[in-house]
Amino acid sequence: MEFSSRLLERAVNEMSQLPGIGKRTALRLVLHLLRQPKEQTVALSEALKQMRQDVKFCKSCHNISDADLCEICASPNRNESVVCVVEDIRDVMAIENTSSFKGLYHVLGGKISPMDGIGPHDLNIESLVKKIEQGKIKELIFALSSTMEGDTTNFYIYKQIQDYKVYTSTIARGIAVGDELEYADEVTLGRSIVNRIPFENSLKS
Amino acid sequence: MEFSSRLLERAVNEMSQLPGIGKRTALRLVLHLLRQPKEQTVALSEALKQMRQDVKFCKSCHNISDADLCEICASPNRNESVVCVVEDIRDVMAIENTSSFKGLYHVLGGKISPMDGIGPHDLNIESLVKKIEQGKIKELIFALSSTMEGDTTNFYIYKQIQDYKVYTSTIARGIAVGDELEYADEVTLGRSIVNRIPFENSLKS
Ligand SMILES: [Zn+2]
Ligand SMILES: [Zn+2]
Repeated sequence: MEFSSRLLERAVNEMSQLPGIGKRTALRLVLHLLRQPKEQTVALSEALKQMRQDVKFCKSCHNISDADLCEICASPNRNESVVCVVEDIRDVMAIENTSSFKGLYHVLGGKISPMDGIGPHDLNIESLVKKIEQGKIKELIFALSSTMEGDTTNFYIYKQIQDYKVYTSTIARGIAVGDELEYADEVTLGRSIVNRIPFENSLKS
Repeated sequence: MEFSSRLLERAVNEMSQLPGIGKRTALRLVLHLLRQPKEQTVALSEALKQMRQDVKFCKSCHNISDADLCEICASPNRNESVVCVVEDIRDVMAIENTSSFKGLYHVLGGKISPMDGIGPHDLNIESLVKKIEQGKIKELIFALSSTMEGDTTNFYIYKQIQDYKVYTSTIARGIAVGDELEYADEVTLGRSIVNRIPFENSLKS
């Protein structure tokens, strides 16, 4: 692609670093910005930079947060003895949206995937095990995607904590096997949390 | 969508202002940036802002440019007596890519479209007519999309300049009728310029 402007070229190149955005799409987006008032581009630019520079991760659950402790962990209305383990902050958003869960979360930041070179130490598992050692957690709900990687991750954590007195459950498989959690509809996702089953039971199927 | 961080929310909202980027896609893109080194977001942010603030449009052909006159108009190797009329800078890029054209361009900035409220005065038509009045242009090649709006625009310009001594042509319709110029393959597009026909001939079909 031959550009008549280095400024344009640089903007398109940076934009096309984003996943799923090819050079052509990037050019279309950048040309759109050129047709809009300058303020729109400035607002986008500032929002991205400030977000990347100032956003924090909750010290307890690793959720994205503007403070050291996220709003959920800091809330006096949440039951801190029940912790729902999720891959991603999008899963926290999806479950919060169902209003069916009043415990806390633990965001792993992914799932164990040897194919992608992601091992247990690349995830927030150690901090979860530490929380369990402290004995405040009575129940751990596994809410990972029902894929092989999700199952592997669940099982790895289960093994790590089996010496501690904590009840483990998984969300009910109302969600189709292989589907990503974040695309589930609210009702199905809400029900799958309410109908969670002991983790041991999930191993039998 | 419930966000645990205002910084994240603002970034997603700004990102989802872009055409074809919904809230979910915006969230996916922003979370991707959070997993990459800070430098990537800073580079994207700076590139967009600088591009929007500093980019110029060529005073002669309205192509995007870093200088007052674009590289094509400023080049001593281009034939300034042949001007190719296009809708969009993406069309300039597409034609340049074929290496089949050594004249100059004139970027209209769109096509006449009453449905979208775009009239002749919203486009760079006046400056084109002025250039033709000056008598330096011997041939005008219409290279607009072969859609009704493209044909309307061609014909409007043709009427405006018919008192001047300028040969008008259109690119050969090797490109499927209704297709956008920028998606044509190089060979077809290059050939359609080489095989251009007198504009009058295109009115007969
Ligand atoms: Zn938290
Ligand atoms: Zn120019």
